[in-house]
Amino acid sequence: MKKNIGAKVRGFPTPIILVGTTDENGRHNFATLAWAGICCSEPPSIQISVRLSRHSHAAIIANKAFSVNIPSNKFVVETDFCGIASGRNLDKPATAGLKVEPGPVLGVPLAADFPVSYECRLTHTVHVGSHDLFVGEVVSCLVEESLLNEKDAVQASKMEPLIYMTEDAYYDLGPRLAPSFNVGKALMPGREQGA
Amino acid sequence: MKKNIGAKVRGFPTPIILVGTTDENGRHNFATLAWAGICCSEPPSIQISVRLSRHSHAAIIANKAFSVNIPSNKFVVETDFCGIASGRNLDKPATAGLKVEPGPVLGVPLAADFPVSYECRLTHTVHVGSHDLFVGEVVSCLVEESLLNEKDAVQASKMEPLIYMTEDAYYDLGPRLAPSFNVGKALMPGREQGA
Repeated sequence: MKKNIGAKVRGFPTPIILVGTTDENGRHNFATLAWAGICCSEPPSIQISVRLSRHSHAAIIANKAFSVNIPSNKFVVETDFCGIASGRNLDKPATAGLKVEPGPVLGVPLAADFPVSYECRLTHTVHVGSHDLFVGEVVSCLVEESLLNEKDAVQASKMEPLIYMTEDAYYDLGPRLAPSFNVGKALMPGREQGA
Repeated sequence: MKKNIGAKVRGFPTPIILVGTTDENGRHNFATLAWAGICCSEPPSIQISVRLSRHSHAAIIANKAFSVNIPSNKFVVETDFCGIASGRNLDKPATAGLKVEPGPVLGVPLAADFPVSYECRLTHTVHVGSHDLFVGEVVSCLVEESLLNEKDAVQASKMEPLIYMTEDAYYDLGPRLAPSFNVGKALMPGREQGA
């Protein structure tokens, strides 16, 4: 039995990412956000949604570029800090002890010690409401080498990413359940049983 | 040491959702996708990105409405099936054994046995490339009552959502690590030690 709790978003698993930008004074900033996701395969694109009041918002519009950095679970305190503090008032990367390196294509600041980072070139801005939705085309994907297998696939169990549950908490990624584009074939009509 | 694997999206944790639509013949459909996320707080909005060739694409544009349904881990086979099969050729809800109920506000088809469903009214369409990004304003959030606490918050550990890792597999949600907007305060300058 379901209850209608109204026009709310609860119980929605999301990634948790740090968006890297450079402000008009040349200062690097990392802003944590969870309203983000992949939004296109060709060209590979990521959407991030940023509250209009946040310091990163102006920097993204000015530079037309940003980075997306995925923390591993050992950076949960730094991740939460970069969602609470504002880059207007302090140097967040230095305060959090996060090493910054420039992206190889766009020069946007990357979190050097995080397992995966992307450089994105801004392609679309959508005014939704409290947040602007920015679409960025991925121009590079930087992965910690020890996480890659021989086909340059990322091994999630070694990556140990964080998952965010809205208005709740950070979680670890759990056990691998089933491969994708695979287990559902069992339900396909006409599939021979036992074949 | 990081390796640049190029313009790719790998190692990105995402939700995995079933989008509910009704096609021009009045047939209900569920399409599984992972390019989705929350994209605004006020009004609460969800973005879903749908490949132009998919059967759901035309239905979303025609009806200007869709549902977002979050499966629990026991529906991993049905979830994968609804990402492989096409609603053009078969009745996916019936084939997968997924019970359909109409949303209370828009009447869009909801997956009755999934823990959480949203009804969304289409507000924006963005042409990104292989995928169109649809923004939907959430008009109702239906939650299995046994998952709610006394404040109508969803208890993630009881919900058992799936997490998707791109080009890889479905995972369980792991253990709760830390509360959000909380643990990062430890890094705030000026905070008294031991206070």
